Amino acid sequence: MDNNNLEALRHSCSHVMAQAVQTLFPEMKLGIGPAIEHGFYYDFDGPHHFVPEDLQKIEAKMREIAKARHPFAKSEHPKAEALKFFESRGEKLKLELINDLADGTISYYTHSDFTDLCKGPHVEHTGKIGHFKLTTIAGAYWRGDEKRPMLQRIYGVAFDTKESLAAHLAMLEEAKKRDHRRIGKDLGIYFFDDDVGPGLPLWLPRGAVIIEELEALAKETEARAGYVRVRTPHICKEKMYLTSGHLPYYKESMFPPMELEGEKYYLKPMNCPHHHKIFGSSLRSYRDLPVRLAEYGTCYRYEQSGELFGLMRVRSMQMNDAHIYCTLEQFETEFLAVCRMYLGYFKIFGIDKCLMRFSTHAAEGLGKKYIDEPELWKKTEDLVERALVSGSVPFTKVPNEAAFYGPKIDVQVWSAIGREFSLATNQVDFAVPKRFGLVYHTAEHGEATPLCIHRAPLGTHERFIGFLLEHFAGNLPLWLSPVQVRVLTITDGQNGPARELAERLKAAGLRAEVNDTSHKVGYKIREAQLEKIPYMVVLGPKDVESGTLAIRLRDGRQFMAVTEADFLAKVLPEKDEKRLAPAW
Amino acid sequence: MDNNNLEALRHSCSHVMAQAVQTLFPEMKLGIGPAIEHGFYYDFDGPHHFVPEDLQKIEAKMREIAKARHPFAKSEHPKAEALKFFESRGEKLKLELINDLADGTISYYTHSDFTDLCKGPHVEHTGKIGHFKLTTIAGAYWRGDEKRPMLQRIYGVAFDTKESLAAHLAMLEEAKKRDHRRIGKDLGIYFFDDDVGPGLPLWLPRGAVIIEELEALAKETEARAGYVRVRTPHICKEKMYLTSGHLPYYKESMFPPMELEGEKYYLKPMNCPHHHKIFGSSLRSYRDLPVRLAEYGTCYRYEQSGELFGLMRVRSMQMNDAHIYCTLEQFETEFLAVCRMYLGYFKIFGIDKCLMRFSTHAAEGLGKKYIDEPELWKKTEDLVERALVSGSVPFTKVPNEAAFYGPKIDVQVWSAIGREFSLATNQVDFAVPKRFGLVYHTAEHGEATPLCIHRAPLGTHERFIGFLLEHFAGNLPLWLSPVQVRVLTITDGQNGPARELAERLKAAGLRAEVNDTSHKVGYKIREAQLEKIPYMVVLGPKDVESGTLAIRLRDGRQFMAVTEADFLAKVLPEKDEKRLAPAW
Repeated sequence: MDNNNLEALRHSCSHVMAQAVQTLFPEMKLGIGPAIEHGFYYDFDGPHHFVPEDLQKIEAKMREIAKARHPFAKSEHPKAEALKFFESRGEKLKLELINDLADGTISYYTHSDFTDLCKGPHVEHTGKIGHFKLTTIAGAYWRGDEKRPMLQRIYGVAFDTKESLAAHLAMLEEAKKRDHRRIGKDLGIYFFDDDVGPGLPLWLPRGAVIIEELEALAKETEARAGYVRVRTPHICKEKMYLTSGHLPYYKESMFPPMELEGEKYYLKPMNCPHHHKIFGSSLRSYRDLPVRLAEYGTCYRYEQSGELFGLMRVRSMQMNDAHIYCTLEQFETEFLAVCRMYLGYFKIFGIDKCLMRFSTHAAEGLGKKYIDEPELWKKTEDLVERALVSGSVPFTKVPNEAAFYGPKIDVQVWSAIGREFSLATNQVDFAVPKRFGLVYHTAEHGEATPLCIHRAPLGTHERFIGFLLEHFAGNLPLWLSPVQVRVLTITDGQNGPARELAERLKAAGLRAEVNDTSHKVGYKIREAQLEKIPYMVVLGPKDVESGTLAIRLRDGRQFMAVTEADFLAKVLPEKDEKRLAPAW
Repeated sequence: MDNNNLEALRHSCSHVMAQAVQTLFPEMKLGIGPAIEHGFYYDFDGPHHFVPEDLQKIEAKMREIAKARHPFAKSEHPKAEALKFFESRGEKLKLELINDLADGTISYYTHSDFTDLCKGPHVEHTGKIGHFKLTTIAGAYWRGDEKRPMLQRIYGVAFDTKESLAAHLAMLEEAKKRDHRRIGKDLGIYFFDDDVGPGLPLWLPRGAVIIEELEALAKETEARAGYVRVRTPHICKEKMYLTSGHLPYYKESMFPPMELEGEKYYLKPMNCPHHHKIFGSSLRSYRDLPVRLAEYGTCYRYEQSGELFGLMRVRSMQMNDAHIYCTLEQFETEFLAVCRMYLGYFKIFGIDKCLMRFSTHAAEGLGKKYIDEPELWKKTEDLVERALVSGSVPFTKVPNEAAFYGPKIDVQVWSAIGREFSLATNQVDFAVPKRFGLVYHTAEHGEATPLCIHRAPLGTHERFIGFLLEHFAGNLPLWLSPVQVRVLTITDGQNGPARELAERLKAAGLRAEVNDTSHKVGYKIREAQLEKIPYMVVLGPKDVESGTLAIRLRDGRQFMAVTEADFLAKVLPEKDEKRLAPAW
């Protein structure tokens, strides 16, 4: 089934659900009920408070309605009549929607005795609503406005085949088990604190290890690719964002300003203006280009409290940022090198499926939504497309979704269980460098404005680590594991040898520690498994005597009487080569 | 001469300067004129605008006054009489000072026909004002308040012997040459930008290299010493600083708040509250202690515009911070380990002279300036003193200058030319952990509050790099040099071999680059010397033919026909061992 048909199916589900709800709870009134990715929802207003048990009843009623194969019928009505009709049914929220519509006729869709304000389209009859399941109840402000009443939203998923519904539900179940918030807690990665503030993660020592490993990888990769690093403050004056054009348009995504000495200072929501200042701080010749400035800069963006979600939606984000300033001639090579860097990283992390959503401009938006440079748009979009094709980079074109200042590429990846994540954005910018007055001296003794590529292959630590925790279900590859080896003693008699062993492992370059508490070894093993520690060395009196190791992996496999040299000979390359699979 | 006598000498100089100024420029009225470190100043109000040429005239007049050996005489006067006297002289600023004094008698000091409001003491007569020199003219707000008028301040230096004056002037001259602001510009380390804001340095790629080397050193050193790393946001809610006690007392040193969702958020002026939250985020047992949390956290503090000075006084600072949570029994070992870490770093940087200023409490301040825990004060101060003595750490005791929550150690170091820098503060904190409710489970199944040691041996990147640039006059040791080797071509014919050589040097682990511009090689050498690049390889046609290198050091020494292997064999250990002297 194609996407349009699926959308009609899902939207029809929401009508059927609304009817089911109003049959069971006649006092409940309607908000809106659109199709969404994988399913649908409807918002309800009224005195009944939905509980999870209600979902089964509603689902059963929906199946009844489906079985009756009521046809969906469209009808058109004058606005005044529509107002009267929905008023008579006490649907006050619908009245507000109708009032917001342009004058003219209003369309309804009716099936059985249920009529809704709706533009459609729908499936033929209720028997075609396919394979669905109601999933969750949530609160949602009417029209997304926190000053308006809170409604109750019921979510459901719907597919055209039994198999695709089952696969989706299995994925959701697996995703719940892999929820980065739960794993983040079990592994001691990060936490939030009310006194610090929502959306501002504090990274615990084990989280900081992951961060530092990722930064080391980025620095090494970027150094090899000819990037240089810079450091910039987290704040700047208002003027920077007026120059860049972020103010006033982007204001609601920024933290409010601090007023100091008659100036407004803002927390930076992105690093580009600071990097532009660095590019502009000295004379640049065509010989110096490309200039590639990299910084793991922390940015701050305001997201509404209700939008915050674990590490995935936060207010502080450490970004794998860089800006490449180049000539038009250098663009293709540079852009392709960036794409290759993305793909190189994805290989390291075992990301098999990725897609670049290439958003282009639309001519009718020139001078409004897009900067009015038709030729530059054409040229850069052609360059990007040519680079993607010639580099065999998987991409899909999305018209009319470019950034204000140039074409944009959103990088989407799928985790091991097939869940989609939007990781990073890659942008071509042919407008802002000019606004900052950036120039280089050309070979012809003239001046030209460089193009700028914004890129962040590893996204932000927050989102990327959240993704990795789900992707690996917490079983991070050895090189990323905060604790790589834990030595577990069976009795106190092994405490000394255990500590010596851990010191030797540390000296060999492994993050090793000892658990010499008085708990039973079985308890210690369960603890280490919960923490997803790749290697356990269980040290009992016999192992000390024989001088060999009993190795246990987090997947439960065991290897007895291993010599320390053999252990290191397997484990060190696993770590150094950043292997995805254990060496055992 | 002891310090009290030197202070009297310097203060007498300021009286003599005031007389000289009023003789030459009778329209100039007086502000205040204290002795300061190395010298004195006086603030003047009036229509004449001092220019550097005036200083010589004033100095000449001062010498005349000195030659006359006018005695300094003290006299006491009722307040009303004093007001009348200074009013008759038009000294309005003095009237304000007198009005602020408690009722009672007011003391004057008079020499020749010059009388000043003054508590003394002074030298016997103007002939004893020693060896002095007027140095600079600066603007200064009356009473340091930017809402009051701007006065003109004349600074001078004064010593008891000709030799110490000469030595001091030579040091100032050398310090001017070593000014980190000039070297920072020549070497491309950092810059400020008006649109970003005053006191907010942007670090250029070469500055970022230094920062990353320092951080690598700190991380390695701290990892060996059992620290773990954390990452915390740069902001938090007001409540954190109310809990810590920084608000309202420290408010004027903080950036103003951002108002969001009815809460005030502040940029963090220090990392401790965030680290306390991390300590408090999980159950801690006595077995887990000491917990050592380290972070190179960027803090923001408000300094008045007039106080900002290059990298030395800034508003954003990347701090080599860590907090050690320990039991009372662990304190001495931990504290001494911190002191040893300081001394270890100083050795690496060739800092031969350092002093720990150990600030203690005073009983009369208990419950006011100091937390009211007399026994804990006694205990921790004894512990600190014992640790300093037993560890042979050079220190001096300063009574009544402790922090609110415990004894404090300010670490002072002297640069290669003998200039003093206050690098870092080391604090013992037995109060704030309690305010945050931090506890650990004791071996006796009870609960106890840990002590906290705040430490930052490398201070902030800003101040430390500023210090290093002066200390080494820009000639950073090889391991810290942003560019370690530059290959200079004599003609275009060497461009290919030069790039290949640079690639080999990079592969060997050196930061190498090529200057293959069309400038003459003499110009290229001068450029590299200005940038203080440790090693130049001058590549001409003969060198390419012979396959050997002509090596040039930044001190001008040259070594011809060196093989690449020999060069690396000398240079790599110089870098890896962080040697201070070149291997050649």
